[in-house]
Amino acid sequence: MDPIHLNYTHSLSSTVGEDHGASPEELAGLAPELQRAQQAIEARRTQDLRWLDLPYQSDVLQSLLRYAESVQGQFENVVVLGIGGSALGNRALHTALNSPLHELYPPPGVPRLFVLDNVDPDWIGEFLDRVDVTKCLFNVISKSGSTAETMSQFLIFRRLLIERLGEARHREHIVVTTDAKAGVLRPIVEQAGYTSFVVPDGVGGRFSVLSPVGLLSSALLGIDIGSLLAGAADMDQRCQSTSMEQNPAMTYAALQWIMQERKGKNIAVTFAYGHRLRDLADWYAQLLGESIGKRCTTKGPAHGVGPTPVRAVGVTDQHSQVQLYVEGPNDKWFTLLEIGTHDHKVPIPADFQDRDALAYLGGRDLGELFQAEREGTRIALSDANRPNCSIHFPRVNAHTLGQYLYWMEYSVALMGELYGIDAFDQPGVEAGKIAAYALMGRTGFGDRAKEIEARQQGPQSEV
Amino acid sequence: MDPIHLNYTHSLSSTVGEDHGASPEELAGLAPELQRAQQAIEARRTQDLRWLDLPYQSDVLQSLLRYAESVQGQFENVVVLGIGGSALGNRALHTALNSPLHELYPPPGVPRLFVLDNVDPDWIGEFLDRVDVTKCLFNVISKSGSTAETMSQFLIFRRLLIERLGEARHREHIVVTTDAKAGVLRPIVEQAGYTSFVVPDGVGGRFSVLSPVGLLSSALLGIDIGSLLAGAADMDQRCQSTSMEQNPAMTYAALQWIMQERKGKNIAVTFAYGHRLRDLADWYAQLLGESIGKRCTTKGPAHGVGPTPVRAVGVTDQHSQVQLYVEGPNDKWFTLLEIGTHDHKVPIPADFQDRDALAYLGGRDLGELFQAEREGTRIALSDANRPNCSIHFPRVNAHTLGQYLYWMEYSVALMGELYGIDAFDQPGVEAGKIAAYALMGRTGFGDRAKEIEARQQGPQSEV
Repeated sequence: MDPIHLNYTHSLSSTVGEDHGASPEELAGLAPELQRAQQAIEARRTQDLRWLDLPYQSDVLQSLLRYAESVQGQFENVVVLGIGGSALGNRALHTALNSPLHELYPPPGVPRLFVLDNVDPDWIGEFLDRVDVTKCLFNVISKSGSTAETMSQFLIFRRLLIERLGEARHREHIVVTTDAKAGVLRPIVEQAGYTSFVVPDGVGGRFSVLSPVGLLSSALLGIDIGSLLAGAADMDQRCQSTSMEQNPAMTYAALQWIMQERKGKNIAVTFAYGHRLRDLADWYAQLLGESIGKRCTTKGPAHGVGPTPVRAVGVTDQHSQVQLYVEGPNDKWFTLLEIGTHDHKVPIPADFQDRDALAYLGGRDLGELFQAEREGTRIALSDANRPNCSIHFPRVNAHTLGQYLYWMEYSVALMGELYGIDAFDQPGVEAGKIAAYALMGRTGFGDRAKEIEARQQGPQSEV
Repeated sequence: MDPIHLNYTHSLSSTVGEDHGASPEELAGLAPELQRAQQAIEARRTQDLRWLDLPYQSDVLQSLLRYAESVQGQFENVVVLGIGGSALGNRALHTALNSPLHELYPPPGVPRLFVLDNVDPDWIGEFLDRVDVTKCLFNVISKSGSTAETMSQFLIFRRLLIERLGEARHREHIVVTTDAKAGVLRPIVEQAGYTSFVVPDGVGGRFSVLSPVGLLSSALLGIDIGSLLAGAADMDQRCQSTSMEQNPAMTYAALQWIMQERKGKNIAVTFAYGHRLRDLADWYAQLLGESIGKRCTTKGPAHGVGPTPVRAVGVTDQHSQVQLYVEGPNDKWFTLLEIGTHDHKVPIPADFQDRDALAYLGGRDLGELFQAEREGTRIALSDANRPNCSIHFPRVNAHTLGQYLYWMEYSVALMGELYGIDAFDQPGVEAGKIAAYALMGRTGFGDRAKEIEARQQGPQSEV
């Protein structure tokens, strides 16, 4: 089976001009820094970057498969209570590998998946009104156990399960993925006797899709998680090369850095040509945005770096965003996710052949039209000197997805070194959390609450 | 009932500094130009900008309601065959006003809605495999009747309906929304005897949500389209004011232009605080991106203008994008869509009160947590001098949505005048279409096909 690969012909100065494309010299010039970056990352593989070894966790794989087998057929619905890195990978794997109509027509014995990654009362309230919780398995995911959204949901659904099923039986409906020892959830798990899985140390939320965080719901939905990890391991091998020409993570990281820091492309569009790949773009948006979107103090006290990720879906967004992409500001770098062979073939009937606007469609199939439109868009972007590249999936399956996920994780880790920031923290989310705690009246945040209240008395500009 | 309104306190220089916020002088300085822009637009109301009068089409409203009543209870599914402006409004109205679980648990007698806005064979093929077309009403939407995606789908589903139901009965399953006289679909409608509705002249795709394009599926799903139009009419009245302090469309247009052209905010984030409002952001992304993302030849032969729209969902994307928003490049302007009163109230049980990380949640409800997090995010953005504003929906209903849709349409029309571009064309999508026609072998595009083929022989850079 062909591996997934990158075609970056149309990100080069030879095709889109030197103002917008990378020259061979610019790429080659980054090789020494990328090799140092790779060494720095590999040196942390057994230290604080344990996510690098997730492809090889065969014990965990076996225990996930055993658990999934033990509950097979028992639940109509798997409900993920998680947010951010505890939700985006789960959804992306499900929508890429299962039917887009899975929830309406689940295969016999396979549960539906709900990923409740919000606390909007209009969503959770509807869920409570409509779905029978006694037919659900709730997968609570939070490493620390202090995530406000996930823990609120846990409190709500746990109480409801106890009311409906009693203290003893409610346990069968909750499975927890959390820290091995620390945090708020682990003691609750031990006291209640919930089945649980571990978010290992050295695996941050946005690098956790190949841990039990992303694998458990996948296993419950029948996704071949062994093949997913095997694909990731294959990509890890390719990422060990010290040659940029052989190492797709190095090349992708180099291109992203050049595009933003040398060519002024502040926006990174993941243009998913495939309805099934749309949620991969959201997964990558967190990985890129939260890892690289940082204050870079070496460039000034408040200097912010990092591309802004944008998701587009082909061919759909040709009728929404391509006008802007082709004629608007040349401030974007495009990564097209392309599929070699689709799983379905849908012929177009050759009716109304006397009408010019329809005749060329008849006798072809939707896959041909889809690919022609994708190529048409790529050509239009390139002709307008909008730099773009393609990530080619020979097919969409667990193995190619494993390759993609690991590739992007490794690339973003390398980007962190090029940008000169810490790709693994998220200090910028603290201020909002503290203000929310203050507004919720959490103990210890009273002073902040008073400051906020004082400020909100000020004059408002409204229309 | 309170109208929806804009709070732009945190887009002003007095709160986020003069590098990032608009000064009173900058805003006031735009008033004469906005008044001219408003006059120019109003002068075209009865000419080529007929979408301005869509709120007042009472005959059309009645005929849509009569048709919806006549088919009530006959179909399990309404299937929109449309893309871009023929899809985004339909989806946005449905997800804002109906249950997020509507497709799984449709109310008695109310159909499900599918909006098939792609030709991906893996999506359409699954739909064909799973859904019984004889229980579907297909709403084919294309003004010209030459949209490749929609017409391919029409050919596929029409043929299947004829095979399953026969020539005579298949007609009851197709309703067409297209041009009154011109185009490819109108003669097909007349020949086959399909029920049809009209996309009026002077109503471009992205300004068509309040025409039968967006209203028909809404009426079939039980949405109060009369109230939707009444809300739009109310907003139209507010948009007639020549005072920026009274006219929300003028103020919003002025802020957007200042943010991009004076403060360097090339990205316009619609941060929808409400799961139900998420698809409004996609609708607006087309409206803004395709209208304003243009070549502006007065500034140079290839000078592109226009903000890049980005959709975020609160609180979900606090765990994905807020790190970047707060610490990354200060190149964004944020519009928070906020909801005053949610339809559901979900209390959080006061369990585990001995644990500090959970105690503050118990006894509150999800709406309070949701609003505290929204305010926390707004405070964090403002404290980091990231300019932001809020559009406040007192409640989410057909009337407030009508206000919002019309407001944004009017604002974008005004922006077109400020940016000095034509907000109503889309020349940048032609190149991609032509290349796709060439690749599909459409008659008349053979020369372009040869050029493309020659170029694709060139060397490829791959890893």
